[in-house]
Amino acid sequence: MPAADVNLDEVYAFAINLAREAGKRILEGSAKRHQTAATLDNPNTKKNRVDLVTETDQAVEAYIKDSIAQTYPDFCFIGEESYAGGERVELTDEPTFIVDPIDGTTNFVHGLDFVCCSIGFTYKQEPVIGVIYNPFLDKLYSAQQGKGAFLNESTRLPLTHPNPAPLASLGDAVIGVEWGSDRSKAIIEKKGKMYMRLAGDGKEIEGGVMAHSLRSIGSAALNYSYVAAGQLDLYFEIGCWSWDVCAGTGIAREAGGKVYGRGGKPWSPQDLMGHHFFVVRAIADAPDGSETGEQAQDRIAKEFFAAAEDWDV
Amino acid sequence: MPAADVNLDEVYAFAINLAREAGKRILEGSAKRHQTAATLDNPNTKKNRVDLVTETDQAVEAYIKDSIAQTYPDFCFIGEESYAGGERVELTDEPTFIVDPIDGTTNFVHGLDFVCCSIGFTYKQEPVIGVIYNPFLDKLYSAQQGKGAFLNESTRLPLTHPNPAPLASLGDAVIGVEWGSDRSKAIIEKKGKMYMRLAGDGKEIEGGVMAHSLRSIGSAALNYSYVAAGQLDLYFEIGCWSWDVCAGTGIAREAGGKVYGRGGKPWSPQDLMGHHFFVVRAIADAPDGSETGEQAQDRIAKEFFAAAEDWDV
Repeated sequence: MPAADVNLDEVYAFAINLAREAGKRILEGSAKRHQTAATLDNPNTKKNRVDLVTETDQAVEAYIKDSIAQTYPDFCFIGEESYAGGERVELTDEPTFIVDPIDGTTNFVHGLDFVCCSIGFTYKQEPVIGVIYNPFLDKLYSAQQGKGAFLNESTRLPLTHPNPAPLASLGDAVIGVEWGSDRSKAIIEKKGKMYMRLAGDGKEIEGGVMAHSLRSIGSAALNYSYVAAGQLDLYFEIGCWSWDVCAGTGIAREAGGKVYGRGGKPWSPQDLMGHHFFVVRAIADAPDGSETGEQAQDRIAKEFFAAAEDWDV
Repeated sequence: MPAADVNLDEVYAFAINLAREAGKRILEGSAKRHQTAATLDNPNTKKNRVDLVTETDQAVEAYIKDSIAQTYPDFCFIGEESYAGGERVELTDEPTFIVDPIDGTTNFVHGLDFVCCSIGFTYKQEPVIGVIYNPFLDKLYSAQQGKGAFLNESTRLPLTHPNPAPLASLGDAVIGVEWGSDRSKAIIEKKGKMYMRLAGDGKEIEGGVMAHSLRSIGSAALNYSYVAAGQLDLYFEIGCWSWDVCAGTGIAREAGGKVYGRGGKPWSPQDLMGHHFFVVRAIADAPDGSETGEQAQDRIAKEFFAAAEDWDV
């Protein structure tokens, strides 16, 4: 499809509207689930007992997919539940929606508010549009490349825009991490040991960073949103998928955040299709001109991957 | 003070109003901090580099303490910042406000929304009133003994009231845990290993529970609130203080939750003054009459402390 045929302003408005409509359906699905809590069937599972999926995930993805097919029949579609149903996943130069109907499904099942619909859009493999909507807290994070990132379409991100905070060291950071759904010994021990180094006092724990703290909210897309907003300083993830991070990547970058490839290497679009993700919030340039914000981001990334050393062995 | 002199309905209304007024001051303090983010002074610290305190914590506690002294000059007061300033902390039979002006100070410093003011009230050592207010999300959790627990004074807690969900096993739970501010090797290694057992697959990790997931929100009082609401299944904490949990204890119990003493032993009021906390949400009675909700809570507690085995050595 030639570039002239893709009206990004229209796609952006469409995606925002779609996320809000999906949000209504998520709220309805939640109300239905919890009205009948005492007799609730267990959610279904995918790859293991903690990889949950509900009828609402599937219904909301079907709604989103149909809406896209009606409005943009020639665009590609990658969705979490369609993939689970056997569809191929490949990032091409074509205009492509990359969608997670409900990110934070475990939270959704338990009625915890940190749930969102994540709608990303790539063109020529770049995530040029991202919309993440949490209907429980009515917070919509969105961005179109080159036009800024926003909360609820009005508040510029990061929330400290145009003055992002400095970040002297990784020790001053609040870091988003998750336990994820891969619970094998190899993964859990690597994560656990890494989190212990990030939290622990370096005077007693080898490699200890003693970061301000670690947070686990339970949604990759919301973690990207919090980094975009400057409310988390960075977010590390391993094991999630393009639909979890595509919209977030677009939003975080447009909010001045920097995304990295595996192990902190420079990011390339195909990293979206991998399973190693890392993003640092916007950081102020040093007042004395000694360091740009991007140099500060790279410094933090370097500190982080020194602490996370055994991830890429 | 004789019981007749304590009008609990009035104290409850007073505490709710006080929490909302404190919330306004927290929002003002946050706006002031983040307007000047690029040139922001570091927060002050208490016992170590990650135990943060801001001018807003101190100003809000002073406001709360003064308000209480004006309205209830004979009541006792225990507050986080007053304690940090050297005041004695002892739980007696006297009417006592136990207050954390800002719970989630690290979140507050970073602009993350999970921040609250926590106002508990004990009489004859029982936490009979609790109010927890998150001004960023405008969510107020409150309870008075015997009169139910509520969100925003209107929605009964748990959110599934009167039909709390069942909880078949600890493996089906979402568990609140935190990394806290004690970052010594002894504490961090115990926590890290415990979290790995809670998350890990028992087929590969000894003692692995493979719970639905672990969440770290960054506020003890909000963790109690989420348990009261039924949004977290349980919350374990070690190392925090009476002001972090007093209000939450009152709210969670009134919402059908069960609090435990150290290591899962029966709770006694003096446990409020300790540093080991554990609470399980309301659970439905089994439809076939085979198990009451409280028996289910005890079963979950037993499962939990089996996995957390080395905490009480």
